[in-house]
Amino acid sequence: MSGSSYGHIYRLTTFGESHGVAIGGVIEGFPSNFPVDITAIQSALNQRRPGQSAMVSPRQEADQVEFLSGIFEGKSTGAPIAFLIQNKDQHSKDYEALKAVYRPSHADYTYEQKYGNRDHRGGGRSSARETACRVVAGALAAQVLQKLGVESSCYVDQIGTIQLPDAKWYSSAQIEASPLRCPEPECSLQMQTYVSELQSLGDTTGGSVRCILKGVPAGWGEPVFDKLHAELGKAMLSINAVKGFEIGSGFSAIAMKGSTHNDLFNADGSTQTNYSGGIQGGISNGMPISLRVAFKPVASILQPQETLQKDGALASLQIEGRHDACVVPRAVPIVTAMAHIVLLDFYLRQQRNTLFS
Amino acid sequence: MSGSSYGHIYRLTTFGESHGVAIGGVIEGFPSNFPVDITAIQSALNQRRPGQSAMVSPRQEADQVEFLSGIFEGKSTGAPIAFLIQNKDQHSKDYEALKAVYRPSHADYTYEQKYGNRDHRGGGRSSARETACRVVAGALAAQVLQKLGVESSCYVDQIGTIQLPDAKWYSSAQIEASPLRCPEPECSLQMQTYVSELQSLGDTTGGSVRCILKGVPAGWGEPVFDKLHAELGKAMLSINAVKGFEIGSGFSAIAMKGSTHNDLFNADGSTQTNYSGGIQGGISNGMPISLRVAFKPVASILQPQETLQKDGALASLQIEGRHDACVVPRAVPIVTAMAHIVLLDFYLRQQRNTLFS
Amino acid sequence: MSGSSYGHIYRLTTFGESHGVAIGGVIEGFPSNFPVDITAIQSALNQRRPGQSAMVSPRQEADQVEFLSGIFEGKSTGAPIAFLIQNKDQHSKDYEALKAVYRPSHADYTYEQKYGNRDHRGGGRSSARETACRVVAGALAAQVLQKLGVESSCYVDQIGTIQLPDAKWYSSAQIEASPLRCPEPECSLQMQTYVSELQSLGDTTGGSVRCILKGVPAGWGEPVFDKLHAELGKAMLSINAVKGFEIGSGFSAIAMKGSTHNDLFNADGSTQTNYSGGIQGGISNGMPISLRVAFKPVASILQPQETLQKDGALASLQIEGRHDACVVPRAVPIVTAMAHIVLLDFYLRQQRNTLFS
Amino acid sequence: MSGSSYGHIYRLTTFGESHGVAIGGVIEGFPSNFPVDITAIQSALNQRRPGQSAMVSPRQEADQVEFLSGIFEGKSTGAPIAFLIQNKDQHSKDYEALKAVYRPSHADYTYEQKYGNRDHRGGGRSSARETACRVVAGALAAQVLQKLGVESSCYVDQIGTIQLPDAKWYSSAQIEASPLRCPEPECSLQMQTYVSELQSLGDTTGGSVRCILKGVPAGWGEPVFDKLHAELGKAMLSINAVKGFEIGSGFSAIAMKGSTHNDLFNADGSTQTNYSGGIQGGISNGMPISLRVAFKPVASILQPQETLQKDGALASLQIEGRHDACVVPRAVPIVTAMAHIVLLDFYLRQQRNTLFS
Repeated sequence: MSGSSYGHIYRLTTFGESHGVAIGGVIEGFPSNFPVDITAIQSALNQRRPGQSAMVSPRQEADQVEFLSGIFEGKSTGAPIAFLIQNKDQHSKDYEALKAVYRPSHADYTYEQKYGNRDHRGGGRSSARETACRVVAGALAAQVLQKLGVESSCYVDQIGTIQLPDAKWYSSAQIEASPLRCPEPECSLQMQTYVSELQSLGDTTGGSVRCILKGVPAGWGEPVFDKLHAELGKAMLSINAVKGFEIGSGFSAIAMKGSTHNDLFNADGSTQTNYSGGIQGGISNGMPISLRVAFKPVASILQPQETLQKDGALASLQIEGRHDACVVPRAVPIVTAMAHIVLLDFYLRQQRNTLFS
Repeated sequence: MSGSSYGHIYRLTTFGESHGVAIGGVIEGFPSNFPVDITAIQSALNQRRPGQSAMVSPRQEADQVEFLSGIFEGKSTGAPIAFLIQNKDQHSKDYEALKAVYRPSHADYTYEQKYGNRDHRGGGRSSARETACRVVAGALAAQVLQKLGVESSCYVDQIGTIQLPDAKWYSSAQIEASPLRCPEPECSLQMQTYVSELQSLGDTTGGSVRCILKGVPAGWGEPVFDKLHAELGKAMLSINAVKGFEIGSGFSAIAMKGSTHNDLFNADGSTQTNYSGGIQGGISNGMPISLRVAFKPVASILQPQETLQKDGALASLQIEGRHDACVVPRAVPIVTAMAHIVLLDFYLRQQRNTLFS
Repeated sequence: MSGSSYGHIYRLTTFGESHGVAIGGVIEGFPSNFPVDITAIQSALNQRRPGQSAMVSPRQEADQVEFLSGIFEGKSTGAPIAFLIQNKDQHSKDYEALKAVYRPSHADYTYEQKYGNRDHRGGGRSSARETACRVVAGALAAQVLQKLGVESSCYVDQIGTIQLPDAKWYSSAQIEASPLRCPEPECSLQMQTYVSELQSLGDTTGGSVRCILKGVPAGWGEPVFDKLHAELGKAMLSINAVKGFEIGSGFSAIAMKGSTHNDLFNADGSTQTNYSGGIQGGISNGMPISLRVAFKPVASILQPQETLQKDGALASLQIEGRHDACVVPRAVPIVTAMAHIVLLDFYLRQQRNTLFS
Repeated sequence: MSGSSYGHIYRLTTFGESHGVAIGGVIEGFPSNFPVDITAIQSALNQRRPGQSAMVSPRQEADQVEFLSGIFEGKSTGAPIAFLIQNKDQHSKDYEALKAVYRPSHADYTYEQKYGNRDHRGGGRSSARETACRVVAGALAAQVLQKLGVESSCYVDQIGTIQLPDAKWYSSAQIEASPLRCPEPECSLQMQTYVSELQSLGDTTGGSVRCILKGVPAGWGEPVFDKLHAELGKAMLSINAVKGFEIGSGFSAIAMKGSTHNDLFNADGSTQTNYSGGIQGGISNGMPISLRVAFKPVASILQPQETLQKDGALASLQIEGRHDACVVPRAVPIVTAMAHIVLLDFYLRQQRNTLFS
């Protein structure tokens, strides 16, 4: 109810502020007796953390995950899995000046309007640091999904106006070869040039992430309100800075005709095209699920901006700190994580439907 | 859990199949002692039903809503408000041929894979007829929102490649003057020509709906997973045929720079621009909420198509029945309804936050 | 959230007032493709309805259940199962006098305090008529449970001070042979004498119901807050007029010693005694589940009582209408139904735990 | 869904095993901007911990609560409040012998049946140590309730066959004056003699706790399934070792007549008697809420017992460790905590009902 939980059966509740003692989460509903690979979870976290390349924020957050419960002798017990990530490289002083100021296009103003107060240090609860907890839960979910044969390919497909031509499947190696996680080398180079240029100006850019999920069998997703793509959409739109979501043909469907858009069947139940994006009527059809997520440019630009003070006066603000000029490369593991959380939840929800079929 | 409910406090559960006895719903969490205008609810329903113009399906569903509980002497009692809409103009025979066939880009195949059986008549549970129930709950929510000062402007802003230039506020009269609910007369005429052309070919087109909500005060929406635009996104993506969702700048944010995209404040807390679309950090900021929803072309084209039979053979299919060549005009009241359901739910969720502020 | 729903996966939402158009419910989460025996559901309803013997209310409610959705060609489809029971034998006029009066130990006063208004006719939403809907959902659940090998024995074990000596298993025939559903003939006769006596005085009595459930395998129930007996307790305490709940040894455990109370194991995992009542740590252990529910005397006595008027004056009240002198015989099918709803819900919750065991 | 969460708006999720790194919890839905008294929370915890007197377990758990989030500059922010209690005085070796053994009337057998494995150290997740987390959330809730005028009196009213004669209100000083939290000095002395006697024999006894809550206004609680006493019942039955629950007249209502049991009104809406226990139709009526909770004797007796091994053999077991001969004195703060959690949740649920009254 308070907004910090996601999932129906596989359920993650996160807590913590950017500059508090720690962030963390509690994972409920993970199946029992499953061998948990903690190293793989830490690896996923490492992909999200800042300081990985010249392209992203130089903050050095160790982001070391520590599990407190629910895992015993290497296996899940069915009990809640709680974990912490200590906040270590905090430059809270960077934010002292922001105590009485609402930064433009940040959540400072709205949190204060909603709650009557706020932890102003580094965005507090509204900081994207919270997404590290999602990566933990996503990487855990991935281990079950992998056993079920589900694979994902998630990458940057647009920064500024530089865009990949197709929604293709790329290997992890292809994606990680690019500091921007854009798997087409030429595009990646163009993007790097563009981002460096903006960095030098203290400006930022938007971008988008494509995520393709293979191996999801037909039958996952619930009808009506909890359609698979509706939950995927909610999950993605809940990531900081996301402004749009598409499944399959997405916005391009507006200009298409039914005679083109309909995905004709093959004899095995697969389809000749995949404008549906692997989901029909909210339920997976066995084809790859393909979605795309649009991110706005980072709001923390390093240029002077006019802003609003708590006392009602307008004043010039120069944001300090270590920020990303383009957040989408670091968003890739977050999009992946949310996709995996959603899928595991729907897999578990589906276990009760076919009992008597 | 089974996907047929939406909302946390203001909660709608719908039931019923397209060609069963009736469809209906149960509304929980509506405040008590509120005078309910049933005529206004019926009017909203009338906007959704087929047969309103030459542009949409000629089916004549009366769609008369009947309330069973929760309203006493004209006022809500706080008890669940149950309602029915009888299914009257059923041509179930139109669907007899579909019993053993999976129509392309419909939910026939996925429902059967998921559940082991299905009600094949007119799409059964997957039929868009279900959305009539959403309109009832939305129109009820609207009555509280109206009292709180919230207004909406919801209209068709694109069909095929014909698109309105801006996201502007239009009056209900302007919108309803167009048989396609496109409030710019010239665009509307072009769209009508295009849709008629497709109708004559038995083909269909996609389209999109813009929805603007004014008067939402700062502070609605929850942080992290239940961000206001994440729930709006889920609500919209749960409508049949939706493939994409944008809030504020949406996909256009990808190509923008932070220095342009940031919404600078005015002294009263409002902003000079509204790329945020009225929501920052998942919480309303008092500016108009602006969103856009993409619909795929209707899958029921009236042309012969190759399809899959239950026995695994491919065969030619000619869909019969009375279908829309373009569904977006009828989607307008559904988008409006879902927006209102989401907003009332968040209003009620917010009542507990500021108790001690 | 509004209190009219029960269950996590197998979920019942009820609606309707005693003297409205109809009462009814929506059942979510029932497994798909299961053959539904509607006659058996109607039979269970018939056991609850008034007018079955001289011992209970002479009201003649047909209580005919009508299914609206979710069942197709005799089988569940996985979609919500909605049902109605029309309100037919309404003597609303009996209640006209109660419009401005709060009956003692009824919910009239509290509903009005809570909601600001109320449907005063026959208790409105607070009427025990609502429990008919629970019987429908319980009888549906029973059909799955039966297939899983779960059986129940539920009967009256005390009225006034007349009490059965042991918690034994009785057959349905033994129970139904008594007009009071007390399976020991001698006790039953004593109880009948006592109830008749009270009837002639316009007075009422309390009573209790024992429920034993056999065939529940070890492993149902969740730890910590959702312990199997905690949910059974909530389910029973939610039935009108219930004042107490015991599992296994219940209140008699207070005076026992651990050396006696501990249930020692047999080699097959069963236990030599069953003070635990079939549940340890909130999870079933394979032994019979045994619980007991205490009901207060019916509040609607047919004697003059002093009562409170809406205007604040105290006045004498003579309740009219057709009421039970002792409600527990009719409570038996309700207790059974709630037990079955809880068990099916926990069975479905358990399906996800053992996936990798 | 996994059983480790309680509450709808004010929601506590607990995690941790008895002998893991730490136990803890996440509290959601606590109102923002409320000054939090952390010392008062620690004091409540101190009341629950072992080692307080010769009457209870000599284990020395510091039970120091550490808050990680959701409180900033002394006030709640509306964000989740996470907390930890480190596990320090662990004698895990005491439990090594129990790895392959199912202790009688413990949850060892059922957890293993349910999950396929278990953390056997000190009961793992099933340990009553988990209830420390409930005390934290209860003590936090109490601070809001206190501001709303709600007070509680919670004490031991029976151990073995020694029972207090009435359900009276006692001050905290009267209750804490007794090492067994039994506020009648003579009864307390008798109980002490009895418990000492059992201790010397390595045996244990059951007991019961009475809880009275004053100052709850009329209107809290929801109708039908979420009746105030049904949720109180669930909350109490979810505490380790609880076997029974009564509200108001409880089981004594069985033998009462309606003409006696009905609570006649005073002109101000209060009632002359309070057999209802402060709740009518599931909703508070403004009178004191009075409930009683029965606890079984502690299962860990220090006498040799026959038990079941994992390999199917029966063997003699001598439980070691530091256990309570009677748990009810330490259960008093837990019952209080659960009552406060339930009440705050219902207070917050009620905020939306009266908006337009």
